[in-house]
Amino acid sequence: MSASPSDPARYNSFLRDLLGAMAYGELSAFERLSSDARYSPTLHDRAVLGRIAVTEFQHYELVSARLEELGLDAEAAMLPFQPSVDHFHERTRPADWFESLMKAYVIDTVSADFYRAVSRHVDGSTRELVERIQSDEAATAVLRELLRAALDDDPRLASRLALWARRLLGEALTQAQRVSAGLTFLGGLIGVDEEQSEEQIRGLRAELAAGHSHRMKRLGLTG
Amino acid sequence: MSASPSDPARYNSFLRDLLGAMAYGELSAFERLSSDARYSPTLHDRAVLGRIAVTEFQHYELVSARLEELGLDAEAAMLPFQPSVDHFHERTRPADWFESLMKAYVIDTVSADFYRAVSRHVDGSTRELVERIQSDEAATAVLRELLRAALDDDPRLASRLALWARRLLGEALTQAQRVSAGLTFLGGLIGVDEEQSEEQIRGLRAELAAGHSHRMKRLGLTG
Repeated sequence: MSASPSDPARYNSFLRDLLGAMAYGELSAFERLSSDARYSPTLHDRAVLGRIAVTEFQHYELVSARLEELGLDAEAAMLPFQPSVDHFHERTRPADWFESLMKAYVIDTVSADFYRAVSRHVDGSTRELVERIQSDEAATAVLRELLRAALDDDPRLASRLALWARRLLGEALTQAQRVSAGLTFLGGLIGVDEEQSEEQIRGLRAELAAGHSHRMKRLGLTG
Repeated sequence: MSASPSDPARYNSFLRDLLGAMAYGELSAFERLSSDARYSPTLHDRAVLGRIAVTEFQHYELVSARLEELGLDAEAAMLPFQPSVDHFHERTRPADWFESLMKAYVIDTVSADFYRAVSRHVDGSTRELVERIQSDEAATAVLRELLRAALDDDPRLASRLALWARRLLGEALTQAQRVSAGLTFLGGLIGVDEEQSEEQIRGLRAELAAGHSHRMKRLGLTG
């Protein structure tokens, strides 16, 4: 089911949207994470979260450079996704350090799963870029360990963070659905009809939710 | 007047304070700048300010690595400077994008002048690190061009930004004085008595103010 860009103009606008959504997602994650870092309990934790934020920015730069390579304006590509990404962040303002950590972890993992799934349908060189960006295991591992340590320190956190993670997942899925809808011509690209395309989107939703639930269980939280 | 670390323990605590102040300054500048970036008028400007914030973080990492090399704990070295740096930021909250730009520019240039001046008295390898970090001309040039463009676009900005820059300078000088006071043993290190040391601090203040005034004039602002 790999995509052959049979319609180059259409494929190009698909790529523009895909990369535009990723780029704006990374840029805004950078800004939110680095602001949240200020509320870290220790300077060490601030630096750890800062480093993760910086990694997001470097991802933004990679995607943005790819857009320029394709002769596309990065700003124009990102703009359509600004309202919904900003809306996501407005609806998920962390109340404290632990909620910031969980938010970073959920964004990191769910968007990696999402973009990796979508990248199955793109050309090799774009897929490579997506893989490179979305499999930054180091950042994910750091966040997981910080969450684990926090939960060990204070078991009462578990129910609050489980609830918070569920809300984050809900918002992230809505967000993923919006981006997918923006990429509807993907259906056309890979030669499936609208119904099949909707089925794919439902399948993707289930896949993202399952991955999340698995990770929460590993943290000892009930999804 | 170069320092020979005749008293190693004292010199070590001098270095710890110098690097600790720099490290916390860079870390907090990173967080503030990247939060401010969100208010940029265009996505392009957001990315530009984000890049500068990331550079600050990379500087923080360099200084922090040097502290570790010296067998010193970066967090412990930064902590004494946290209250006054945070206080500085609280007293200089930008009201909009233009004030954020000016704040970044003033912090960038005045602290570079300050640390370069102080580094005249340190060992070669530390001086090299300070030079490397504080002469990041690229970021400074970007900020200067953004300010110049903003002032060209709207000449009424000039008086407001001139006033704002004056306030920033005042706060930055207070900050520099605090750090210098924390480094009082510098006097002892370079073999001058307390009176001479106070004279040096006055001289440094004048030097920083003159550099700032020169830069403001180049922007067409009256210092």
